[in-house]
Amino acid sequence: MTVPALTLSGLNALTASAFVAGLRDVFEHAPWVAEAAAAGRPYPTVTALHEAMMAAVRNAAPDRQAAFIGGHPELGSRVRRAELTDHSQAEQGGLGLDRLSAGEFERFTGLNAAYREKFGIPFIICVRRHTRNSILRQFERRLFHDVATECAAALHEIGLITRLRLVALVDGPGQPVTTGRLSTHVLDTVAGRPAAGVRIALHEIGESARGLLKETITNADGRTDAPLIAGEPLRIGTYELTFHVGEYFGSQSAGTGFLDIVPIRFSIAEPEGHYHVPLLATPWSYTTYRGS
Amino acid sequence: MTVPALTLSGLNALTASAFVAGLRDVFEHAPWVAEAAAAGRPYPTVTALHEAMMAAVRNAAPDRQAAFIGGHPELGSRVRRAELTDHSQAEQGGLGLDRLSAGEFERFTGLNAAYREKFGIPFIICVRRHTRNSILRQFERRLFHDVATECAAALHEIGLITRLRLVALVDGPGQPVTTGRLSTHVLDTVAGRPAAGVRIALHEIGESARGLLKETITNADGRTDAPLIAGEPLRIGTYELTFHVGEYFGSQSAGTGFLDIVPIRFSIAEPEGHYHVPLLATPWSYTTYRGS
Amino acid sequence: MTVPALTLSGLNALTASAFVAGLRDVFEHAPWVAEAAAAGRPYPTVTALHEAMMAAVRNAAPDRQAAFIGGHPELGSRVRRAELTDHSQAEQGGLGLDRLSAGEFERFTGLNAAYREKFGIPFIICVRRHTRNSILRQFERRLFHDVATECAAALHEIGLITRLRLVALVDGPGQPVTTGRLSTHVLDTVAGRPAAGVRIALHEIGESARGLLKETITNADGRTDAPLIAGEPLRIGTYELTFHVGEYFGSQSAGTGFLDIVPIRFSIAEPEGHYHVPLLATPWSYTTYRGS
Amino acid sequence: MTVPALTLSGLNALTASAFVAGLRDVFEHAPWVAEAAAAGRPYPTVTALHEAMMAAVRNAAPDRQAAFIGGHPELGSRVRRAELTDHSQAEQGGLGLDRLSAGEFERFTGLNAAYREKFGIPFIICVRRHTRNSILRQFERRLFHDVATECAAALHEIGLITRLRLVALVDGPGQPVTTGRLSTHVLDTVAGRPAAGVRIALHEIGESARGLLKETITNADGRTDAPLIAGEPLRIGTYELTFHVGEYFGSQSAGTGFLDIVPIRFSIAEPEGHYHVPLLATPWSYTTYRGS
Repeated sequence: MTVPALTLSGLNALTASAFVAGLRDVFEHAPWVAEAAAAGRPYPTVTALHEAMMAAVRNAAPDRQAAFIGGHPELGSRVRRAELTDHSQAEQGGLGLDRLSAGEFERFTGLNAAYREKFGIPFIICVRRHTRNSILRQFERRLFHDVATECAAALHEIGLITRLRLVALVDGPGQPVTTGRLSTHVLDTVAGRPAAGVRIALHEIGESARGLLKETITNADGRTDAPLIAGEPLRIGTYELTFHVGEYFGSQSAGTGFLDIVPIRFSIAEPEGHYHVPLLATPWSYTTYRGS
Repeated sequence: MTVPALTLSGLNALTASAFVAGLRDVFEHAPWVAEAAAAGRPYPTVTALHEAMMAAVRNAAPDRQAAFIGGHPELGSRVRRAELTDHSQAEQGGLGLDRLSAGEFERFTGLNAAYREKFGIPFIICVRRHTRNSILRQFERRLFHDVATECAAALHEIGLITRLRLVALVDGPGQPVTTGRLSTHVLDTVAGRPAAGVRIALHEIGESARGLLKETITNADGRTDAPLIAGEPLRIGTYELTFHVGEYFGSQSAGTGFLDIVPIRFSIAEPEGHYHVPLLATPWSYTTYRGS
Repeated sequence: MTVPALTLSGLNALTASAFVAGLRDVFEHAPWVAEAAAAGRPYPTVTALHEAMMAAVRNAAPDRQAAFIGGHPELGSRVRRAELTDHSQAEQGGLGLDRLSAGEFERFTGLNAAYREKFGIPFIICVRRHTRNSILRQFERRLFHDVATECAAALHEIGLITRLRLVALVDGPGQPVTTGRLSTHVLDTVAGRPAAGVRIALHEIGESARGLLKETITNADGRTDAPLIAGEPLRIGTYELTFHVGEYFGSQSAGTGFLDIVPIRFSIAEPEGHYHVPLLATPWSYTTYRGS
Repeated sequence: MTVPALTLSGLNALTASAFVAGLRDVFEHAPWVAEAAAAGRPYPTVTALHEAMMAAVRNAAPDRQAAFIGGHPELGSRVRRAELTDHSQAEQGGLGLDRLSAGEFERFTGLNAAYREKFGIPFIICVRRHTRNSILRQFERRLFHDVATECAAALHEIGLITRLRLVALVDGPGQPVTTGRLSTHVLDTVAGRPAAGVRIALHEIGESARGLLKETITNADGRTDAPLIAGEPLRIGTYELTFHVGEYFGSQSAGTGFLDIVPIRFSIAEPEGHYHVPLLATPWSYTTYRGS
């Protein structure tokens, strides 16, 4: 994670033009958003600043708002590059499936065309909160919206995108919650203690492929030294944790074991939520649940 | 299943030559096995008859025994055709991966050559008790045997192969146990009752592929109308049951669910065993275990 | 269980007066019930015969019906003796708390007086479907009824009482379901097999006391040779099963164990239901659920 | 908890006689223990100080050591008053059964006599690490010791007793661990979230009675605001947690529920351990385990 370049108190004290310049990357090509927000200073929280900027967008004259929305890049290019791709190379979490298959590329292209045909704007979604699968599902769902509902949906996503940018840029009190957390815990219920040294892998599950996101191993407390994902939004989608319990129990070496690699497949629906997915295991049984 | 063509009491009453003719397909190209067994009649059980035939093999003169073992076909051809392939087309159970990949073919070829080089006989294994993966593992393991140990292993497998043939051919008391059983049961622990209408699939898990063995659905008692596998040996190997619990609970329709398709991966080590693999589930948690 | 003295086909063929005499103990002091039912013969099922008799009660002239209901004995005497007490001495199941405490006696006496004061009839309940606790709760609940609702409740209970008597007296097709079943199953999830030799006790839990109903031990299949309760209605109430798992695992002998006697407390609400209450245990964890 | 009156650095700097005076209540009636330890100053940790004092006891001349051990009060009086009774009135945790039954009194009296007869010293045990039941079991077990083994056991207990006294008296680095922790956590696996507002009670389970130690309720995170027991040794013994899950799920109000009050009975064997005992529950099923 990079350190934010600005502070809220600094922004509150700048001249209006320096304030606008400092925030120019939050709402791209729309300096009027920061200009409108400059007048509302000082802001007590980063959240309040973001809400003021979004209010400026929502209250903008219709043609200005339309031009702003229409000025966003096509999703296709963003999915191929930018936030999605960059992110997938980050050290932890990220999108495992970093290249579009030919079929997916075709679906995106078709959806983009149908969407622009119906709504006259590019499809906007906060990519960093989604896996490729959930983007496709959102895309297909939002095509059924009427224009007003979809306009609200696009503004909602712009709020989510700019909130992430603002948090990355500005330090200060009252930060909006933009990150989630995925963690696990393995209990050995034969011995009644944490299972140490269990190898774990986390995959993202796509429609026809799976992408490895992380490999790790449990420590003496049966947990991983760092959460499986943290410090960023959890991407809406389907995941699979695999636990090498056969290896841990030594029950596969004799070739007579029952459980070897235990897969737990689950969906994440709340990017800013906390998902704790423990495993209570013996060589012959296990229990899992969404914990807290 | 086909009906056995002979009965034990019938065999006990036949002339010696008719007895030998009736059993000619059990020990191929070795009528002397049945000839030796004919003298021991009457047999009270099918198991006793089989043991008498195996005793004849074990007590045969060394050159006759060696010729008998050496006359078995190469595994490669049998894996590609015969018991393995035929079986995989049977209605239930069976080997999901019915074509060898190029890599597997190469491994089998290499193993066959190394095995013949070391032991001078073809590799013999009761294919119907194994998945392709477990055959490869057995092959690799048995290459480390010394000659005497491996000779005993080959005879043991011949016993398993001929036992299956005898049971298919002869009806009568005291049948040896040659079949296993895989079953499941789904409990809805939100409602405290069996989960009816849950779709279930059973896959065989190979090293790099998975083969669908069966699709079914739970009945009003949360069980499947027929066992997942029964009436044949369970093939040693790794399997995955997938339960469509999201669909059952309706929890995925809203896009906010946690569990959708629950996979349970397990190994079968005892072809003649009973494996009961239940699922106790809510939309947020589940427990599984080897039951009885 | 005693063998029914009559058969339905026999009853269908008797003279009307012999039919009435044969059934005289089902609706005590009300031969007119059987007289009315005699005309409807032949009955195809025992259930149809019982329904015809209950129809006769429901359609009786008001004064005759009132006299019939009013002729039932006070509950107090029945709880102290008769069905309740007799039953508690039966070999399996039964009511564990076979003597009223002073406080309970006082409550029953007060409730009887209040009930007769309000409704002018004795409180009628099918005692064999209840524990003492649930009788008290029913008593207290039904005191709030209006007269019509309570009259229907009393007739409903008479139906339950006479159904049990009829089933005990008459053999034949279409018997109404009057019995429930309580069973258990213990799995040792350390070893992945049924837990054999686990001592189990079943208690009925009263407000201030507990009564032992049964002690048993699991067999090789982890089950009890006979169900914990079967062949009679389950009594509505609260129960506790205790499983001596520390003894089974040998984990208490060292004085360092975690689980010793595992209690599972549950309520039975459906006297004719099937309650299966399994235990999946290690020395450090367990799972239980209402199974099937 | 009271604040320690002394600091280790203060003790290290005192004159020898002030040092001895300050520690006079740790080893009662044996100022020679502190005198011996005074010479070893400065001590880097409280643990090192305690070990030095215990070394002085172990290395004392036999008659001095015997007089020291023999000077301890009879257990009976201490069980009736002192640490045991005082403790049971403490705010949290503690010994639930604060009065000896006639039978227990008789057993203690008999054991005291037999012990003194065999060993010639009073029975010494660190009462604050035990429930009454475990004291009786220890007593009965130690009666079988030979003299040397029992002398070592008595010194070990004196170490435990004085360690607790020293920790209460002296603040400083390197405190020995003298406290344990009992906690719980309730998950509602119907809703996939922590169960808030669940009433919980903790009882100590004696041979023929149970003593209430604590009543509490889960917070929004499904945990209790404070651990069930903390800041003191856990007393070796048997406990029962009861969770009012029927009330939580509202499943008992209709009178058709299955689970109402869920009891979890477990033993504590390590007074300085951490026992986490969670409950994963639906109205029809639950799982518990020793967690971490």
